Amino acid sequence: MTITISIDCMGGDHGPSVTIPGALAFLKQQPQAQLILVGLEDQVRAELKKHHADKHPNLRIKHATEVVAMDDPIEVALRRKKDSSMRVAIELVKEGQADVCVSAGNTGALMAISRYVLKTLADVDRPAICSIMPNQKGSPTYMLDLGANVDCEPHHLHQFAIMGAVLFQAMEQRRPSIGLLNVGTEEIKGNEVVKATAALLRADHERGVLNFHGNVEGNDIFKGTVDVIVCDGFVGNVTLKAVEGLSRFVKATLMETTMSKLGALLARKSLKKLNPESYNGAGLLGLKGLVFKSHGGANAFAFDWAIRRAYNAAQYNVQEQLSAMISELMPQASDPQAPGATTQQG
Amino acid sequence: MTITISIDCMGGDHGPSVTIPGALAFLKQQPQAQLILVGLEDQVRAELKKHHADKHPNLRIKHATEVVAMDDPIEVALRRKKDSSMRVAIELVKEGQADVCVSAGNTGALMAISRYVLKTLADVDRPAICSIMPNQKGSPTYMLDLGANVDCEPHHLHQFAIMGAVLFQAMEQRRPSIGLLNVGTEEIKGNEVVKATAALLRADHERGVLNFHGNVEGNDIFKGTVDVIVCDGFVGNVTLKAVEGLSRFVKATLMETTMSKLGALLARKSLKKLNPESYNGAGLLGLKGLVFKSHGGANAFAFDWAIRRAYNAAQYNVQEQLSAMISELMPQASDPQAPGATTQQG
Repeated sequence: MTITISIDCMGGDHGPSVTIPGALAFLKQQPQAQLILVGLEDQVRAELKKHHADKHPNLRIKHATEVVAMDDPIEVALRRKKDSSMRVAIELVKEGQADVCVSAGNTGALMAISRYVLKTLADVDRPAICSIMPNQKGSPTYMLDLGANVDCEPHHLHQFAIMGAVLFQAMEQRRPSIGLLNVGTEEIKGNEVVKATAALLRADHERGVLNFHGNVEGNDIFKGTVDVIVCDGFVGNVTLKAVEGLSRFVKATLMETTMSKLGALLARKSLKKLNPESYNGAGLLGLKGLVFKSHGGANAFAFDWAIRRAYNAAQYNVQEQLSAMISELMPQASDPQAPGATTQQG
Repeated sequence: MTITISIDCMGGDHGPSVTIPGALAFLKQQPQAQLILVGLEDQVRAELKKHHADKHPNLRIKHATEVVAMDDPIEVALRRKKDSSMRVAIELVKEGQADVCVSAGNTGALMAISRYVLKTLADVDRPAICSIMPNQKGSPTYMLDLGANVDCEPHHLHQFAIMGAVLFQAMEQRRPSIGLLNVGTEEIKGNEVVKATAALLRADHERGVLNFHGNVEGNDIFKGTVDVIVCDGFVGNVTLKAVEGLSRFVKATLMETTMSKLGALLARKSLKKLNPESYNGAGLLGLKGLVFKSHGGANAFAFDWAIRRAYNAAQYNVQEQLSAMISELMPQASDPQAPGATTQQG
């Protein structure tokens, strides 16, 4: 099966000067993939020419007349830019022309347009953003929500756990352990929302539906204590950005003196596994279609990684597994005690 | 004025084997300070002897028969260990025998015992923990709350901002800018609690009481965008631990190969300013007495830093300034529109 990926070439801080080289780097190691490059045709074509790739057989350009700016309010992106590269790239997924879409654009706009165009999966109240971090065990820590939902109720966090577990299982081909992000590991710790969520997850664990490890703390992200970490979008977003901020601070510090530059050079191979660029590519989960979000400030190397992740998700049928497993795992109408038990299945 | 510091020698993961060398290192650079070493006398004396310091003129030992374990529930620490080194050290502050107390013990127990023994300042609803992080500008970023309050209302966050501002001004001798930790810098961003808090802080800014910068994001902690960052204890605790986890991951990675070890050695001088150990020492604010908390896993070098911070706080009369400025800055009965306007002043 050929996998086709629609790429919002205008998104991100750098637009085509990053997305096109990223796409070309991706094609070098996945020469059987097909890419649809969405954006202002002239700019996309000019960038392709620069790389002598304007006649690449695995590429086609889809013209879109508008661009969602990184600081566009959601309303503007959604209502006034109906022919934006972001929206057209997502519509290609809806129409079945692409299996997955990748954008480095404005997160709020990407989520809003994705929800509007693709719609939310039945049984899912709120889509979530699932990112990946490196950990000391050398395996990935999946973490969600990373910013789509700043006010969450326990049943939202419960659904995030289920969606994160399905994504992990599909992508990593093993059953994940789930941790609930908290201020301590003991059951009595946390705010009311987290305590109520833990009760829902423990119930799932007892009936064998999820492998719930229990509460985890901030440092467990990098320890690799669990495979999937669940939190609300406020905590997730702040944590992710704090961690990125520290990484940038370390990098800048290493570039300060000749001595530290030399040190960084020697340690380069070891430090590589910490490189956040190779963990770029967050999944928007809970929609009727696959969308991956690249960091807005990504370079071509990082953007390539986001496309790779999107490709794997399409290859492993993440969307089908999400649809199937979510309706299996979410509390059902047949379970009279479950919240939302009267909801119609779709 | 001689400053006297009571030290909970039994607290932390390592007890006297860290706290005593830390205290002795501190005295080397502050030979005019007085320390009261609180703990099991035999153990404290044995450790002092090891360092040929059992007759040090600036030290005295205060025997306490019990020890609060790092995993003791708050109830046990508070109700069943009434002669713990932690409690006795705090009581010395209450009795005026010490100007400030330092402990590396269990945070929950330290806050609970401090509140019980010292009581909360009038006008303060909830004490908060204020920690310090390094930033790219080379100045400290103060951040609170770091875990004392997991469920916060806007007026709690408002009070944290005032207390953080007072601590910063006293310790750093300049008026701080205040940022509210959020998922974006725009006014429309955030959950309901944060949006309502921003309105309170903007009002303070307009009447010239606080220098409110606006919303900040996780990466602003290390950028040094503002001097004081306000958040609830859940977000603060998770963020702090995530950042510590990443630091440990980076360190472990650098120790992996001979090449990376050599790299780390060359970069040592630059990386030093990132060293979380020299940022050890968080203030418990809003109590009728000064208490500083060291990281539980601190080594002697880090514990020394926590004592230095406590010493500076006492030297700069942080407690007096907190008492005076909080009743000045907190919304008053004379301001009929302020929340809590009917509260009695004490």
